[in-house]
Amino acid sequence: MEKYYYYSLDKLKQFEKAVFAGIGVPEDEAEICADVLNAADRRGIDSHGIGRLKPIYYDRIVAKVQNAVTQFEIERDIAATAVVNGNNGMGFVVAKKAMAMAIAKARTFGIGMVIAKNSTHYGIAAYYPLMAVDHNMIGLTGTNARPSTAPTWGVENMLGTNPLVFAVPTDEPFAFTNDYATSTAQRGKIEQYAREGKSMPPGWVIGRDGKTKTDPDKVLTALISDQAALTPLGGIGEELGGHKGYGYATVVELLSAGLQLGPFLKQLGGVVDGKKTPILLGHFFIAIDVAHFAEVDVVKKQMGDILRALRTSQKATGAERIYTHGEKEYLHSLEREKTGVPLPPVVCSQMSHMRDELDLDFEFEWDFAT
Amino acid sequence: MEKYYYYSLDKLKQFEKAVFAGIGVPEDEAEICADVLNAADRRGIDSHGIGRLKPIYYDRIVAKVQNAVTQFEIERDIAATAVVNGNNGMGFVVAKKAMAMAIAKARTFGIGMVIAKNSTHYGIAAYYPLMAVDHNMIGLTGTNARPSTAPTWGVENMLGTNPLVFAVPTDEPFAFTNDYATSTAQRGKIEQYAREGKSMPPGWVIGRDGKTKTDPDKVLTALISDQAALTPLGGIGEELGGHKGYGYATVVELLSAGLQLGPFLKQLGGVVDGKKTPILLGHFFIAIDVAHFAEVDVVKKQMGDILRALRTSQKATGAERIYTHGEKEYLHSLEREKTGVPLPPVVCSQMSHMRDELDLDFEFEWDFAT
Repeated sequence: MEKYYYYSLDKLKQFEKAVFAGIGVPEDEAEICADVLNAADRRGIDSHGIGRLKPIYYDRIVAKVQNAVTQFEIERDIAATAVVNGNNGMGFVVAKKAMAMAIAKARTFGIGMVIAKNSTHYGIAAYYPLMAVDHNMIGLTGTNARPSTAPTWGVENMLGTNPLVFAVPTDEPFAFTNDYATSTAQRGKIEQYAREGKSMPPGWVIGRDGKTKTDPDKVLTALISDQAALTPLGGIGEELGGHKGYGYATVVELLSAGLQLGPFLKQLGGVVDGKKTPILLGHFFIAIDVAHFAEVDVVKKQMGDILRALRTSQKATGAERIYTHGEKEYLHSLEREKTGVPLPPVVCSQMSHMRDELDLDFEFEWDFAT
Repeated sequence: MEKYYYYSLDKLKQFEKAVFAGIGVPEDEAEICADVLNAADRRGIDSHGIGRLKPIYYDRIVAKVQNAVTQFEIERDIAATAVVNGNNGMGFVVAKKAMAMAIAKARTFGIGMVIAKNSTHYGIAAYYPLMAVDHNMIGLTGTNARPSTAPTWGVENMLGTNPLVFAVPTDEPFAFTNDYATSTAQRGKIEQYAREGKSMPPGWVIGRDGKTKTDPDKVLTALISDQAALTPLGGIGEELGGHKGYGYATVVELLSAGLQLGPFLKQLGGVVDGKKTPILLGHFFIAIDVAHFAEVDVVKKQMGDILRALRTSQKATGAERIYTHGEKEYLHSLEREKTGVPLPPVVCSQMSHMRDELDLDFEFEWDFAT
């Protein structure tokens, strides 16, 4: 078993911010980037936290494939709608500003929608609809992503993991939010199976021969060479509803790339002739102001009542308990505020690497490991 | 094999309208009801067409559990949002008027949202977002429904089949629309397995013991007595993403019942002490005006390009072809305009029954069968 180091959330955020600033992200925007990344660390979504900093952001910015300074342009702004252009800057910054606009529009009109174009990877999707929740609004976002997922009856990686994520205010200490990919699984989960040397469940991945693949090491390679693809939620074929997950993934692609006329599907591969190229993502953001429909506190209690009824319904024999969405992330937050964030060796070494390259003033516990 | 009679779409719609009018639905509203029901017949969604007329609508109206005359009230109408009250009238009528309001609001503000309360079963969900498509808009609807589906790690029928249905305009002869339940399967499909005497795929239904049930006859009984429940899309547990389908179903419940403070989950059972009671559903409708974001024809072509790229991607060996959503329904429409609608014996006998009770002037081919 690999040794994991625990690093406090606050210190980790300082480090994340220092790295973003160190590669040229302006101070206030580095704060936004670090806040979104740190929210993933906090909520236990380790596929989207500190482990992403080097491969997805640092490396692409240092290689000048993505801009550290975000030229955020409002291209259209008509009543309850807007289109904004991120100009290949920081997706976090684009998304946070776009959702803030949707929230302002919802305050005025009851509902607002903003589409972002020429953006980049925006981290955990839930961050943005949860901004709406802070204003007693319902939030919705989606984004396209690098191709990874095959359509039903297809074998090619066409769609991204395309999340379709709502957040709803409640009277509980945590909001409802369904933050996940529209694919059955994603790369992060497969990497976990590889680390643990376990065979994957059938149905997660489809090979070019149309059959499921379950060897995680082989799959991780095959996913990159497009010899295998993730399945949409519901799995291979239609028997268990694979066409339904495929439908949600398509909805997200249409809303993300269709209304802003940006690149889509295979055009988001990010590599051309072996060279990294910009991945110009589209996102959409909707905010819905609860106060336009009914009294806020009454609605929040009603939302809580629905969720509590689900959690207290009859559980399956042997099941620990029934959760509602956002609850597990909340429980992770409580724990990680105490314990800090567990960092696997590969992440520790990435952190050391970035610190050394940027000459940042951080000391790590693992510096002194023998 | 049972003999199916084919009945033309137009004549079937006339019959459907005559039945609605015969039980007291005003002429113009009967036209709406028949149009939605007939759209299901046309699109091949036989779980929601003529076969539903007697059990879901006729019987409940004749028993005075649901009102034939729809008192449609606008309770709130603020900027881009509204709340309407269907007063236990016809869900079709409530939904069509509510979506028309959302479309009018989207025309003005770019996006509009209307919530319906005290409504009833509104037929195929896609009908309403497709209204938006006719105005070059994107449509979205969802509705709660009678409890049938268990939450992940639960065994009780809590959630409805809660569809979350988008429709998107394209440059093709058919719109994109993902019209399906957020459960893995639904009752109509299980009935089909029962008719064919086949065992169901594991993962569709969970019993009170937490294990999947595959005998369709036993399952159909157990679903009614709440001894079994449908699984959310992704199946039992979390391994294949059951928590994801559960999340979408919950989103629909929250948006349908939460903002309008109406009954939810088990409160929608429709039977109390063996007596039928109103099932006061909530729906939501969102329309998004494409013209607020970009030029309509360019967006429609872009949407079509995305869908065509999916359909022409590499298909699995042995797969006939890759579809996009709404295409199969379109192909059904073309066929049924020629062949008419296939009616199984049980539906023929329901039609005869309603005709005779209402003394309607319709002759059926099966009247003369020997």
